[in-house]
Amino acid sequence: MEVFDVVCTALAIRKYKDDPIPQDTIHRIVEAARLTGNSENAQPWHFIVVEDRDTLKKLGSLVRSGPYISQAPLAVVVVIKETKYAESDASRAIQSMILTAWAEGVGSNWTGFYGLERVNALLDIPEDLQVLAVVPFGYPNQPTGKGRKRRKSLTEVAYREKFGQPFE
Amino acid sequence: MEVFDVVCTALAIRKYKDDPIPQDTIHRIVEAARLTGNSENAQPWHFIVVEDRDTLKKLGSLVRSGPYISQAPLAVVVVIKETKYAESDASRAIQSMILTAWAEGVGSNWTGFYGLERVNALLDIPEDLQVLAVVPFGYPNQPTGKGRKRRKSLTEVAYREKFGQPFE
Repeated sequence: MEVFDVVCTALAIRKYKDDPIPQDTIHRIVEAARLTGNSENAQPWHFIVVEDRDTLKKLGSLVRSGPYISQAPLAVVVVIKETKYAESDASRAIQSMILTAWAEGVGSNWTGFYGLERVNALLDIPEDLQVLAVVPFGYPNQPTGKGRKRRKSLTEVAYREKFGQPFE
Repeated sequence: MEVFDVVCTALAIRKYKDDPIPQDTIHRIVEAARLTGNSENAQPWHFIVVEDRDTLKKLGSLVRSGPYISQAPLAVVVVIKETKYAESDASRAIQSMILTAWAEGVGSNWTGFYGLERVNALLDIPEDLQVLAVVPFGYPNQPTGKGRKRRKSLTEVAYREKFGQPFE
């Protein structure tokens, strides 16, 4: 699938089939994160691949916005060293993962946003690093919307040459 | 080009050919930003498409990390309303734009990171909004590296089940 079509159709997926995700797909998801462009090539990130059912259940109970992690066959825990650019860089890496997964039919959704010190304890993550997000992945067990998204219109968010001048 | 290949090969491009970017490509770049997944679907972003040579030159002089904007045929100025998730959301939108462009042979690079109040003045951007970044785009006029990137190894950034346990 072309990148543009992937961006246009990728939806937040919160219900997953039980099917495991092939290891080569997991490998590409993690590689997409690792290879993402980032500020000054500092790569202030770590990615923990979780497939253990018991750990996924615990993550689902620890991440308030992501109880459905417990049903996913996979989650990637995204850890940063807090620097000026780390949140932005890691957000780009997460977007690379989400798009790479969607191109292979795998849905996901960003859950959590800092405040996840108990995940540090669960996964032996050093205290000087922050868990930015937990991203569950799985084959969608919900309608995938045929690419329709609720978004503000182009008129509301895009302009030409100056703020407020219509793009179209 | 498949998403994964795009993520693997997309490089920071700082030298551009004079060739203009077709309007349908510009349209897809902006649509990719608009349609990006974001927190609580708040879409706390605005995108200003700049093609005017004089404005591009001024942006190149205002953005310390992006003097080469002045040579690009296009720049997208990314503006956010500062909320908890806005920087992260807009970073994902920028990643969507960069990947969508690269799939069509168009290179780019993130320049600037806040502190761009003079861009507000230049482009009539309301003072309560922040310029997060200026992203120039153009056909590469430099080697594109055949997909080789300098990145930490998988061993250094990816783990299984617990922090520190090798991914591979």
